[in-house]
Amino acid sequence: MIIILKEGITEPQIAHVVERIESLGLKAHLSRGTYRTVIGVIGDEARIAATPLEAIPGVAQAVNVMPEYKLTSKTAHPQPSIVAVGAGPTLARFGGGHVGMIAGPCAVESAERMDAIGGAVKKAGANVLRGGAYKPRTSPYAFQGLGEEGLKILRDAGKKHSIAVVTEVVDPRHVELACEYVDMLQLGARNMQNFVLLTEVGKTNKPVLLKRGMAATVKDLLMSAEYIASQGNSNIVLCERGVKGFDSACRNMFDVAAVAQVHQLSHLPIIVDPSHATGRPEIIPSCALAGLAAGADGVHIEVHNCPEEAMSDGPQALLPDQYAALMVQLKAVAQAVGKTWG
Amino acid sequence: MIIILKEGITEPQIAHVVERIESLGLKAHLSRGTYRTVIGVIGDEARIAATPLEAIPGVAQAVNVMPEYKLTSKTAHPQPSIVAVGAGPTLARFGGGHVGMIAGPCAVESAERMDAIGGAVKKAGANVLRGGAYKPRTSPYAFQGLGEEGLKILRDAGKKHSIAVVTEVVDPRHVELACEYVDMLQLGARNMQNFVLLTEVGKTNKPVLLKRGMAATVKDLLMSAEYIASQGNSNIVLCERGVKGFDSACRNMFDVAAVAQVHQLSHLPIIVDPSHATGRPEIIPSCALAGLAAGADGVHIEVHNCPEEAMSDGPQALLPDQYAALMVQLKAVAQAVGKTWG
Amino acid sequence: MIIILKEGITEPQIAHVVERIESLGLKAHLSRGTYRTVIGVIGDEARIAATPLEAIPGVAQAVNVMPEYKLTSKTAHPQPSIVAVGAGPTLARFGGGHVGMIAGPCAVESAERMDAIGGAVKKAGANVLRGGAYKPRTSPYAFQGLGEEGLKILRDAGKKHSIAVVTEVVDPRHVELACEYVDMLQLGARNMQNFVLLTEVGKTNKPVLLKRGMAATVKDLLMSAEYIASQGNSNIVLCERGVKGFDSACRNMFDVAAVAQVHQLSHLPIIVDPSHATGRPEIIPSCALAGLAAGADGVHIEVHNCPEEAMSDGPQALLPDQYAALMVQLKAVAQAVGKTWG
Amino acid sequence: MIIILKEGITEPQIAHVVERIESLGLKAHLSRGTYRTVIGVIGDEARIAATPLEAIPGVAQAVNVMPEYKLTSKTAHPQPSIVAVGAGPTLARFGGGHVGMIAGPCAVESAERMDAIGGAVKKAGANVLRGGAYKPRTSPYAFQGLGEEGLKILRDAGKKHSIAVVTEVVDPRHVELACEYVDMLQLGARNMQNFVLLTEVGKTNKPVLLKRGMAATVKDLLMSAEYIASQGNSNIVLCERGVKGFDSACRNMFDVAAVAQVHQLSHLPIIVDPSHATGRPEIIPSCALAGLAAGADGVHIEVHNCPEEAMSDGPQALLPDQYAALMVQLKAVAQAVGKTWG
Repeated sequence: MIIILKEGITEPQIAHVVERIESLGLKAHLSRGTYRTVIGVIGDEARIAATPLEAIPGVAQAVNVMPEYKLTSKTAHPQPSIVAVGAGPTLARFGGGHVGMIAGPCAVESAERMDAIGGAVKKAGANVLRGGAYKPRTSPYAFQGLGEEGLKILRDAGKKHSIAVVTEVVDPRHVELACEYVDMLQLGARNMQNFVLLTEVGKTNKPVLLKRGMAATVKDLLMSAEYIASQGNSNIVLCERGVKGFDSACRNMFDVAAVAQVHQLSHLPIIVDPSHATGRPEIIPSCALAGLAAGADGVHIEVHNCPEEAMSDGPQALLPDQYAALMVQLKAVAQAVGKTWG
Repeated sequence: MIIILKEGITEPQIAHVVERIESLGLKAHLSRGTYRTVIGVIGDEARIAATPLEAIPGVAQAVNVMPEYKLTSKTAHPQPSIVAVGAGPTLARFGGGHVGMIAGPCAVESAERMDAIGGAVKKAGANVLRGGAYKPRTSPYAFQGLGEEGLKILRDAGKKHSIAVVTEVVDPRHVELACEYVDMLQLGARNMQNFVLLTEVGKTNKPVLLKRGMAATVKDLLMSAEYIASQGNSNIVLCERGVKGFDSACRNMFDVAAVAQVHQLSHLPIIVDPSHATGRPEIIPSCALAGLAAGADGVHIEVHNCPEEAMSDGPQALLPDQYAALMVQLKAVAQAVGKTWG
Repeated sequence: MIIILKEGITEPQIAHVVERIESLGLKAHLSRGTYRTVIGVIGDEARIAATPLEAIPGVAQAVNVMPEYKLTSKTAHPQPSIVAVGAGPTLARFGGGHVGMIAGPCAVESAERMDAIGGAVKKAGANVLRGGAYKPRTSPYAFQGLGEEGLKILRDAGKKHSIAVVTEVVDPRHVELACEYVDMLQLGARNMQNFVLLTEVGKTNKPVLLKRGMAATVKDLLMSAEYIASQGNSNIVLCERGVKGFDSACRNMFDVAAVAQVHQLSHLPIIVDPSHATGRPEIIPSCALAGLAAGADGVHIEVHNCPEEAMSDGPQALLPDQYAALMVQLKAVAQAVGKTWG
Repeated sequence: MIIILKEGITEPQIAHVVERIESLGLKAHLSRGTYRTVIGVIGDEARIAATPLEAIPGVAQAVNVMPEYKLTSKTAHPQPSIVAVGAGPTLARFGGGHVGMIAGPCAVESAERMDAIGGAVKKAGANVLRGGAYKPRTSPYAFQGLGEEGLKILRDAGKKHSIAVVTEVVDPRHVELACEYVDMLQLGARNMQNFVLLTEVGKTNKPVLLKRGMAATVKDLLMSAEYIASQGNSNIVLCERGVKGFDSACRNMFDVAAVAQVHQLSHLPIIVDPSHATGRPEIIPSCALAGLAAGADGVHIEVHNCPEEAMSDGPQALLPDQYAALMVQLKAVAQAVGKTWG
């Protein structure tokens, strides 16, 4: 850590800053410039990460030079991790050159619909089927999901079509139950900094799909992954799904640069979700292709066989035929950038 | 609701849209323009709010003309609500011309510190004492709060200094416990769309301090308040505490216009929290005064007697003396805009 | 245009709104809903686009259903335009399936450097060479460009290596001069809404590279293109180069979804500039590939043979070798998405 | 400047960085930490501000500790500047405890209207009358202003009502002409980084009203003021008028914290413009009061006597009566925060 002192700081103030640093068991290395004095802190930086050094009188700025995330950093694990979801005939892989394809409706609505959509996306090449049983809806009056009944329907559709399944958890009291039914747990954007929930899924051994929050930086996303990893579960797939932007033409701003940023900083795989990022079926394919070309380790797409009847997020779903057509294009781009499909 | 149809929509498509609307028990009123046809939907709009009308082929846009929040809207309750916190000697009021002043440290750290800070802010004129027992920290390695021990310390400090107390809850399993100790429950910015937690505090009869999420619009904030109200608890104080902005000079962008927006749309009181909004002690007083002049129903300030030793958010805390000086200025502005203090 | 009236509007107020609309030579079609009354305006919408209808008492909202840009819209010209830059051996094409590759240093610094870089990017497959002679620098103390001398150096390098050249204009008084030297005029992000400059380049017959402003929506970008087109010059290539975002890890937020949005709304080609969008050489290739896969009609990259000596924007430039390696990957993706190279 | 080196940098690389710094006539002071090595640069920092140090291999980050703006910084001029506009009976003052009140229509439309509005705002207490003769409209088809005729009308209205006048310039070729008619030149948000125009107004001796750009940080705003000051004209009044935000409920996000930030960093006065910041007459008064309470050196409000007939920005104008009522409240708040009116 580099501590930059304020202009006009007094000698006793400098001595006080140094004393505070040394009281933490660290060494302070003073460097006096023409305009400013800086202190290089030598020792275990983790000790001072949580110390409010900028509150010490005379300190202008404290610059971290080491990331606060450890287990999820590339320093800890230089090779890209491969996260496996499902097993045997339902095995899907994310990362290390493998791309995984997640698809399905926003919410589990009925066994018939789940069966039809599950069959269609599997046929198009998807290897993980999604469906929400507990929906985090912005309105208390909107459809909230089928609960455990939804989990059963999802599991059965996955079994029938030999495809792994993922569902979102929103309540720490439901994590255990969800683990009985699905191959992967999803943490949604609105819960990316629900630290209670992060801790709870970190205690399971299920792969986790962690979506980036709408106001989260890439570093924030890695810090949330660190919560899960710090509990012992490192099977984490990150997901870029759009952040808040000023142009209301799309639901969110699809931050495709996050893919390369994550690959620079972390060993964890990252996929893209252009469905939630854009909310517009006519824009989704373009962004899906962009994500894959950028190096994403998979693509997450909402698919529904009758969007106008969908109980949640209908307007942003692709039809099964549109999805199948997109998958042909995705395969061509995956090949162009040297990725292994599945 | 107004449904705007796409250019070039066919007659059978129009008929299909009309049929869908009528199947929901509503009337469709067609208006054919030179370039576009629009449909005015007549009937109970709540029925169609959750229906994905934009997914129907030929529909360009569906414009809501009624707000989706009901209980929290001004339509439902035209007069401003007054939310009372505490009782008797600890009574604090927010809204309807009354301003409430919340102050205290980010986290409860020890009985001695809480006592000292509680005494200081009470003396300066605050009427609600804050302190976190469960901290939602972005790093899993940072101080997470004292838990129930912290709740006890907070309650005792409140009793000793005759001041109401508020604390943040982050886990639905802790809401009941927290209710035994405090006068008001806080939902933090990161949990504004934690619908499980919103529902849980909605089942209590405690006043709730609901902070705006970093990527939430004012409408999103009201929708989250609606979650709480829909469970039966309408004692809600909203709080503007800064949203994500592009200028990293401050921690967040303090959106003072939210105050007037909430007062236009809702009967609920709204206060401002310039401590979290700016994160910079030298900017906080200016923004506190701005919030009050804008019509806010109170001000929330972090105060600590030794910021450099604070276990959380030290760099943004005011010293007790700085807080007392600010309160003198706040009183002058409150008087200038015709507010009742307390 | 659809005009939504306020709740509780009186009959005389409605009559006044109708009267205002009819005074503009348009027809008003009233539709009374249960909660709200709306007016569909029938006739030439262009007449009312500039009229402040929302200022009429009783009007809640005026919803435009027709875009305000005309010449640049897909309605006016359903087929994608192909913009040609240069001629004969220096011909480059953008749009309609053709991708153009622009590369070069931020600023023209010397004839030797321009020659070296021009030769390198041409060899790697670029077909337009860039270089700034007038630099819009945020600091008045930074290098402002070589002026006409720079234009000459750029032209000579283009001639020597048989490659078209583009340069930025920042002053309406320099447009004529620049036209004597270059094949394409660039309008930078900071000047996207410099309407005086837009008008001036619109009077020339040179192809224009119009960069999106940092706070501009896609619609704003098209409105600026409309300024140029309204003067008679429709040879416009749009450029996505990042918008302001909240994550300071990258210089800007690269909005790759803008590519598909432009293709939905306009016949004009759009290219991407990941150099300015990200400002980070290690992120640029990933975003360049993403842009092309998204359907962009070209890629703009800053290339410098000694970034640490660059007089402007050195830290974001690729080395010639890095550029050549990226071009190999870009060719593979262009082929995968069916684009013609050049 | 502090230069932070990358992990794993080699000794020859360190030597190369040091050599580059010394070649600029500066001293490099090495400080080797446990994880990172940093270099404190000693000497005239201005020399290296424009040097792309981050492009040198092995450099992770270059942290500026001195602001790049000089003439406009508080370091250069610790006391707040007072900018005088007009003279004698039309004298208005901004800064150093004085608040100035700017009001008037968006555009000059006719002599009659300007006379009526000028008289009304003067009576309400305004001391600078505004009106645009050259309008930077986003649509080429919208009203572009009356040009020189508008300047005459504005000057005459100012004379008649003994009030100073301000108008916007958008073209460097019109600056000289505008100076003949008005007391103050305005540079609009869209031209905040039109460096050609900044330079041109910097060569005049007229006070300048410099509006913050929609994507500009406070530092960017000060850099633009520096452009003007570097030409010899330091009579600059800054203006916060809203920046791009994600909540489309208001036209922009009113960043009231910019007031205190500017006062921390610069001696220049800063006023607020809630009309452009919010675009909503029912929100404007609340934000005007907020700005003044925050310490702003004045308030800019759009006033029109018939908003529905306004040729530009009608929906956001206050009526003269609304303005007069607001001014009464503003006076009360100005008194509460110890400002001198006028």
